[in-house]
Amino acid sequence: MVIILKKNADKASVSRLEEMLKNKGVSANHIEGATQNIIGLVGDTSAIDVENLLAQDCVENVRRVQEPYKKANRKFHPDDTVIPVRDTIIGNGSLQVIAGPCSVENEDQIMTTAIACKKAGATMLRGGAFKPRTSPYSFQGLGKEGIELLIKARKETGLPIVTEIMNGADLDLFADVDVIQVGARNMQNFELLKALGKCGKPVLLKRGLANTLEELLMSAEYIMAGGNMNVIFCERGIRTFETMTRNTLDISAVPLLKQKSHLPVCVDPSHATGIISLIEPMSLSAVVAGADALEIEVHCDPKSALSDGGQQLTPEKFTEVMTKIKDICAYLGRPLGK
Amino acid sequence: MVIILKKNADKASVSRLEEMLKNKGVSANHIEGATQNIIGLVGDTSAIDVENLLAQDCVENVRRVQEPYKKANRKFHPDDTVIPVRDTIIGNGSLQVIAGPCSVENEDQIMTTAIACKKAGATMLRGGAFKPRTSPYSFQGLGKEGIELLIKARKETGLPIVTEIMNGADLDLFADVDVIQVGARNMQNFELLKALGKCGKPVLLKRGLANTLEELLMSAEYIMAGGNMNVIFCERGIRTFETMTRNTLDISAVPLLKQKSHLPVCVDPSHATGIISLIEPMSLSAVVAGADALEIEVHCDPKSALSDGGQQLTPEKFTEVMTKIKDICAYLGRPLGK
Amino acid sequence: MVIILKKNADKASVSRLEEMLKNKGVSANHIEGATQNIIGLVGDTSAIDVENLLAQDCVENVRRVQEPYKKANRKFHPDDTVIPVRDTIIGNGSLQVIAGPCSVENEDQIMTTAIACKKAGATMLRGGAFKPRTSPYSFQGLGKEGIELLIKARKETGLPIVTEIMNGADLDLFADVDVIQVGARNMQNFELLKALGKCGKPVLLKRGLANTLEELLMSAEYIMAGGNMNVIFCERGIRTFETMTRNTLDISAVPLLKQKSHLPVCVDPSHATGIISLIEPMSLSAVVAGADALEIEVHCDPKSALSDGGQQLTPEKFTEVMTKIKDICAYLGRPLGK
Amino acid sequence: MVIILKKNADKASVSRLEEMLKNKGVSANHIEGATQNIIGLVGDTSAIDVENLLAQDCVENVRRVQEPYKKANRKFHPDDTVIPVRDTIIGNGSLQVIAGPCSVENEDQIMTTAIACKKAGATMLRGGAFKPRTSPYSFQGLGKEGIELLIKARKETGLPIVTEIMNGADLDLFADVDVIQVGARNMQNFELLKALGKCGKPVLLKRGLANTLEELLMSAEYIMAGGNMNVIFCERGIRTFETMTRNTLDISAVPLLKQKSHLPVCVDPSHATGIISLIEPMSLSAVVAGADALEIEVHCDPKSALSDGGQQLTPEKFTEVMTKIKDICAYLGRPLGK
Repeated sequence: MVIILKKNADKASVSRLEEMLKNKGVSANHIEGATQNIIGLVGDTSAIDVENLLAQDCVENVRRVQEPYKKANRKFHPDDTVIPVRDTIIGNGSLQVIAGPCSVENEDQIMTTAIACKKAGATMLRGGAFKPRTSPYSFQGLGKEGIELLIKARKETGLPIVTEIMNGADLDLFADVDVIQVGARNMQNFELLKALGKCGKPVLLKRGLANTLEELLMSAEYIMAGGNMNVIFCERGIRTFETMTRNTLDISAVPLLKQKSHLPVCVDPSHATGIISLIEPMSLSAVVAGADALEIEVHCDPKSALSDGGQQLTPEKFTEVMTKIKDICAYLGRPLGK
Repeated sequence: MVIILKKNADKASVSRLEEMLKNKGVSANHIEGATQNIIGLVGDTSAIDVENLLAQDCVENVRRVQEPYKKANRKFHPDDTVIPVRDTIIGNGSLQVIAGPCSVENEDQIMTTAIACKKAGATMLRGGAFKPRTSPYSFQGLGKEGIELLIKARKETGLPIVTEIMNGADLDLFADVDVIQVGARNMQNFELLKALGKCGKPVLLKRGLANTLEELLMSAEYIMAGGNMNVIFCERGIRTFETMTRNTLDISAVPLLKQKSHLPVCVDPSHATGIISLIEPMSLSAVVAGADALEIEVHCDPKSALSDGGQQLTPEKFTEVMTKIKDICAYLGRPLGK
Repeated sequence: MVIILKKNADKASVSRLEEMLKNKGVSANHIEGATQNIIGLVGDTSAIDVENLLAQDCVENVRRVQEPYKKANRKFHPDDTVIPVRDTIIGNGSLQVIAGPCSVENEDQIMTTAIACKKAGATMLRGGAFKPRTSPYSFQGLGKEGIELLIKARKETGLPIVTEIMNGADLDLFADVDVIQVGARNMQNFELLKALGKCGKPVLLKRGLANTLEELLMSAEYIMAGGNMNVIFCERGIRTFETMTRNTLDISAVPLLKQKSHLPVCVDPSHATGIISLIEPMSLSAVVAGADALEIEVHCDPKSALSDGGQQLTPEKFTEVMTKIKDICAYLGRPLGK
Repeated sequence: MVIILKKNADKASVSRLEEMLKNKGVSANHIEGATQNIIGLVGDTSAIDVENLLAQDCVENVRRVQEPYKKANRKFHPDDTVIPVRDTIIGNGSLQVIAGPCSVENEDQIMTTAIACKKAGATMLRGGAFKPRTSPYSFQGLGKEGIELLIKARKETGLPIVTEIMNGADLDLFADVDVIQVGARNMQNFELLKALGKCGKPVLLKRGLANTLEELLMSAEYIMAGGNMNVIFCERGIRTFETMTRNTLDISAVPLLKQKSHLPVCVDPSHATGIISLIEPMSLSAVVAGADALEIEVHCDPKSALSDGGQQLTPEKFTEVMTKIKDICAYLGRPLGK
């Protein structure tokens, strides 16, 4: 951490600052320049609050030098984290394809869709039981019943199930879920992250629409600080000025997250683009960029879907996309699932 | 709502679409052009899901024509909503100044700060008991004890208290709080909004860092759909590419929200800018733009604050700012408080 | 400037870096930490290229500590720059109101509008002769003839004229213009900035839609480095995800630019918001935030305007807005014009 | 185009609007709803100015239904545009790799780099002669001499040359250049676009940092409206709130531009990310997403580069990246060059 002092900082204020730093166990190195004096801090600066430094009279600015995340930091954990989910593994070089409808709507819909996804080559099943909707007048999901239907679909297909939690108080309902998803709007719902930190289940943590990668890493840190190391990042597009796509898919986040962290990375091209014809090229892009998993919305009959109709693939279209995905996995020498 | 048909849409698909629309109770008007056919919908389109339309084979695009919010819409509720809070009122032409520390840290700190705020002219007291922090290693707030200390400070000063909720499960702890704040990161925590919809307390709803004004209006709609009409918007800066300020304060949101909705609007210059020297000019700007309230961070000793030290005003600086605020209120003929 | 070294930087590479820094005349101070070594640079770092440092093997990252602008920097030029324009002055505490149509369309239109603006209290006249339009099929302006019509309108009303340049090659045509405007899309047209640096005329430099304040300051630096010190900044809204307004007007840019620089600041609420009902509140906000000038679009008959019809004020509406502006100027003790 | 009328629009104003539309040759279809009346326009609406409609008393809002670009629109030109450049072709299914230094610095540097690029498999040579730099104190390029050195390098290697123009007045200097590049900051420098429309040379048009894809399409339309059909789009990252990468590379722009337009698309991973370790994964992603070309910065000695040192590849690293690119081209059945 580097502190830039004000041009005419008075000595008393600088002395108080030094005293304060000493009490926090870091040593201060002064560098005096012609136009600017700076202090470089040596030691464990993780307990130092930047805002607190900024409040001191003599301080003009503060620059962080180290990453604020530790448990999620590859520097301290060089080996890839691998996360077992039932009889498969995320993060071991394989590609997982998590497919299924936006919302679980009824038994027939989820069963038909799950069977079609399995047949096309999906390795996990997704489906929303609790739905975050912008409008209070939209379909809000089946809740508990939705989870029960997912479990039924898992029994039928063998596919591990992934579904979203919106409230820490509901955690008990997810006891038999395989991967718990945190949606983009809840990426900084810290109460929820703390609750998930205490359970051991794999968490698929979606990047918020307006959250930096550092904030995403810090949200993983929240879960890991609670003791749960099984976090999977999910890039699902960020909010920009562009209006032709629903969001802007940041594919560069994939190799960057894998460089900065040891945790696996998933990409969701369905929510990122909101455009059916972009799912295939964006899936392939994500895979060659190093994604460990894809999450793709598939519905047995998108025309009658209760949510996100416009971006869900039909089983036929999904089968086509999977053919290309299998092909590129073969080229890259990456197994599909397992 | 207007549906743009694909260039070579087949008749069967268009017929199915028309049937579907008819079943939803809206009538479809065809407009045939040389290069594009469109359908204009007449009737109550609020139950029609845009995504669902987009999933139909013959549909190229859909344009909404009406606002998706109703209870928050000034078109249907032309009169300003006024919200009584203890013996004062928000939204009746007066200006409320909500001041206090980022976090409640201990009895001495909140008491000293509250008394100083009151003396300077603040009309309500803010203070965080539950704190959303980016890092799990930062101070997380005093929780329940923090609320108790705020109540003590209210008893001493008479100032109504405003504090943030992060979890619907904590609602009972807020029984004696005057205004419940929803933080920017929770603006689309729909479970929390639903919980607040069921309680009658005034809610100060902060705009999310990356949320549009329409989404803010829809989040108010969530609370109102549950039966609680006492919502106050709070503009607190949005996330942009600019790095010199913490966020970009969107002052134009004030008159715009007041045109679109009948609900009162507050502005938080402290979080928006993160820069002490900008609090005064941005407060004055907000007031002349029509804000019903300001929320300003004040700390009896910012240098030792446990959070947000760099942007909290000292009581001395706050007194200076209040002098300017009182002066402009007098000029505008707007009472301070009451 | 602070250089953060890679964790396992080899000594030879660090030596080469030190040698290089020495050759550029700056001295390097080492700070060795447990997990990170950094080098603080002392001396004139303005000739050091950050990218060049980043290319060295041993360097992980670089943090700038000083502002890269000098001539535009208030630190080195504490006094406000005042810019005489004919018999009036920008930046001396007065408020200038630059009003007029988006485009000069014909003699009758510009004359009628200019006379109406003058009567309502405007202190300068704007009007586009060269028009940057997104579509090649839109009206592109009258060019040279437009400038001649503006000069005629100045003769009639006495109002100094402000008009936009799009090409350095046209500079001769602007010989009798009072203030040359650089549009948002040309803020980083460095060839144009260099050409303007060589002429002595006042330049109204509009902030680009996606440009940071630091970049705006650097573009002023371009003009000033060429010898022309008469630069006026103009905040006209930045591009964000919000769609309800044309752009997001960053009012906080006004006090911030005035703190960082000694140059005057103008605000253009017409282009920033694109909404007629927001011109008045945003104008007042800008004035209380410290703006030295406002630029407002006024057209004698907006319904028949060849460009920007939807955001231009009628003379009647402009007169109403001016009444409020005069009133707040009186309150603030700021003269209008002069 | 659809016009939404104000709730209480008076009949006289609506009649005037209808008259106006009739005069412009479009027919108006009324749709009367319970809460909203709309008018659907049929005919050629390209001459209708949205802003002009918004200025009418009775109009609340306007929604466009058709794309505003024609010559660049695939709807009207279904076949891919192929652009011959010397003895190679862009857009015919092949992949072009445009490599070379950020700036041409001297003969030795450009020759060494060009030979290394050729050897590694590059199919075209890039190099900046005129450099847009944020700071007036940075290296501004060799200008004319830079172009002469590029021509020398072409003679030596046979690689067609690509270099940036910043000013239409310089066009003569580009007579022997193969592809003229328009930089991101000049994407809406309409004077420059018009000048390029009159010359027949291929133009590599970079997307502006804050420009939508529709605006990029409109800028191509400017060049094409002037008669030059040889436009190649280049996605090079957009400005977002993310700070870990220089910009956010929007890979989804590749398939989307190719769906909307018949023009070829290039991707520049160097400027988009600014991070050497991301060049390879982003290049591969772009290729599988359908890019016709890549533009990659390579320097014979990045450590001593006069600009962009931190993001230029060494010849060794570029050779590694090219091995992967060749491999994926072979897999996809796409020839490299030709």
